[in-house]
Amino acid sequence: MNELQNDTFIRALLRQPTEYTPVWMMRQAGRYLPEYRESRKTAGSFLSLCKNPDFATEVTLQPIDRYPLDASILFSDILTVPDAMGLGLYFEEGEGPKFEFPANNEERIAALEVPDMSKLQYVFDAVKQIRMGIAGRVPLIGFTGSPWTLATYMVEGKGGTDFLTIKKLMYSRPELVHRILQINTDTIIAYLNAQIASGAQAIMIFDSWGGALSHNAYIEFSLNYMRKIISGLTLESNGSKIPSIVFTKGGGLWLEQQATLGADALGLDWTIDIGSARRRVGDKVALQGNMDPAVLLSDPNSIEKEVETILSSYGKGTGHVFNLGHGITQWTPPENAAAMINAVHELSKKYHSP
Amino acid sequence: MNELQNDTFIRALLRQPTEYTPVWMMRQAGRYLPEYRESRKTAGSFLSLCKNPDFATEVTLQPIDRYPLDASILFSDILTVPDAMGLGLYFEEGEGPKFEFPANNEERIAALEVPDMSKLQYVFDAVKQIRMGIAGRVPLIGFTGSPWTLATYMVEGKGGTDFLTIKKLMYSRPELVHRILQINTDTIIAYLNAQIASGAQAIMIFDSWGGALSHNAYIEFSLNYMRKIISGLTLESNGSKIPSIVFTKGGGLWLEQQATLGADALGLDWTIDIGSARRRVGDKVALQGNMDPAVLLSDPNSIEKEVETILSSYGKGTGHVFNLGHGITQWTPPENAAAMINAVHELSKKYHSP
Repeated sequence: MNELQNDTFIRALLRQPTEYTPVWMMRQAGRYLPEYRESRKTAGSFLSLCKNPDFATEVTLQPIDRYPLDASILFSDILTVPDAMGLGLYFEEGEGPKFEFPANNEERIAALEVPDMSKLQYVFDAVKQIRMGIAGRVPLIGFTGSPWTLATYMVEGKGGTDFLTIKKLMYSRPELVHRILQINTDTIIAYLNAQIASGAQAIMIFDSWGGALSHNAYIEFSLNYMRKIISGLTLESNGSKIPSIVFTKGGGLWLEQQATLGADALGLDWTIDIGSARRRVGDKVALQGNMDPAVLLSDPNSIEKEVETILSSYGKGTGHVFNLGHGITQWTPPENAAAMINAVHELSKKYHSP
Repeated sequence: MNELQNDTFIRALLRQPTEYTPVWMMRQAGRYLPEYRESRKTAGSFLSLCKNPDFATEVTLQPIDRYPLDASILFSDILTVPDAMGLGLYFEEGEGPKFEFPANNEERIAALEVPDMSKLQYVFDAVKQIRMGIAGRVPLIGFTGSPWTLATYMVEGKGGTDFLTIKKLMYSRPELVHRILQINTDTIIAYLNAQIASGAQAIMIFDSWGGALSHNAYIEFSLNYMRKIISGLTLESNGSKIPSIVFTKGGGLWLEQQATLGADALGLDWTIDIGSARRRVGDKVALQGNMDPAVLLSDPNSIEKEVETILSSYGKGTGHVFNLGHGITQWTPPENAAAMINAVHELSKKYHSP
């Protein structure tokens, strides 16, 4: 494996001093980039792309070839996991993901099993190949959906719902939902450990739908399983610590609880003031975020202003990884992403001077 | 006007002692009720129903005829206001609301005006007629959308979006969005004052989409305009105080700021622990909420358990109006709503004993 030339991202996650605030963008390999749209032309369905390590490598490298980003993230999808469980993931033209066999009744839930990791070998192959392509320029982040977030798709059978199917089950037959969550947890531990063994240098858990839960349900059905995952991971590789990030979108009310998870950093969406988040978590964790992706639809001046607002709200010192509060939108002009990245690098220096 | 026989709801909003915790349900006149579905059969489009005081009266009374609720709420829609502004509101079969002339460019925004309140006379007529139908059993709540929430529909031209059109405008041309918000604010003040003059005994501002904003944008583009509304209202009628409720869905992070609005109560969605919300707002405001509507899809036992959890989290004393954290879903079995209402009345008595 290549020596890491820029470890600013890793040091910020571990709350070690850095010269500036590192930055990457959720969904940075995506449709807003003309080179990504070009690559998509030749290939097939979204799922087949995730299963193709050559394609995953090509598009993972595109944003780091174009921009001075401080981290790269594996091109993949959180639904590779339920797909490996045999739920029959497919994508309908113009619609979101769907499952042929949702885990929405007692029989199907009883039949769920932790899949053999060989079914996800294409992910581990992609991680290895991407590491070679990056050649040590920046760290590579591996990732997974959270047990709860995966369960919402598995039970609802699709995305874009109000979660009424899984919530009805959760409130009337909680033991069935706990069974799904435990299987997801065991699977994710094996999945992330294999990503780390293949070369992932940091890992992130996307709890995209934890924010749909009540306070108590969040603790019981989402947070507690993420805690099990963090304790089940081998967060070291070749003597280097592998930092972990947990991101519950819409979870700003529960930062104190998230800060006890054992993760090194928490992701923040744009609804929370990052300075107030920092005061609430103290020195327990680093923070990653949190500009509204919609800001990137405006203009370089407005973008710089928002970047400065976030940097100054976080304040002096380490422990901040700049990011958007959600994935970059496909309507973003690529030059606006450049303006944000440059603004973060330039404007953040004053917050890191001794 | 009839003497109010049950003023528990009003007293709780004013943080005066009550014998039990009052309860009503957002969207309580709705599709989950067979009698509502029956009434809908004979009538036309949703908008034409809102414009028909006889229909509005009939369906407003249905839930209070069926259940021992402690408040009724005007059957109407928040989009009556932009409709009166001439934006051409219409509803397409199977889709949400749309506007023929969205306020999405400088020219259209410049042309916006506070509409003559005579265009909303049908709302005031409905309020008067409903008050007669209620005959003093419980108070009648009047309502409006917040300036920001109305602006999202007015600029996006429809519901169900990611708010990228209005946010792009907000970040690049904030003065245009401020113009819309000021016009909405002036309109809403006149609209709510006329509802109060017609007989509304409490008012509620639904900031359904404030939670889509960043912390700073929420203060500047939503909260500050709601503050102007509260100070512009005549919150007294015939010597009685008219309590006001502000509800920003997804706004649990900003309760401290909301508590300074001058409103009597804050609505809470289900993501926040109501006990923690109470500690944060102190004795500044009453709280309304906050059971996940999905709980009503389970069974009476699970519903009672959740009701008790919320009541005990709020704790002893007045200042709590029980409600769902969002509108009741159309899939709710009516007997489950009854189970919730009865559980609130029975289980709450112990929190109000001297």
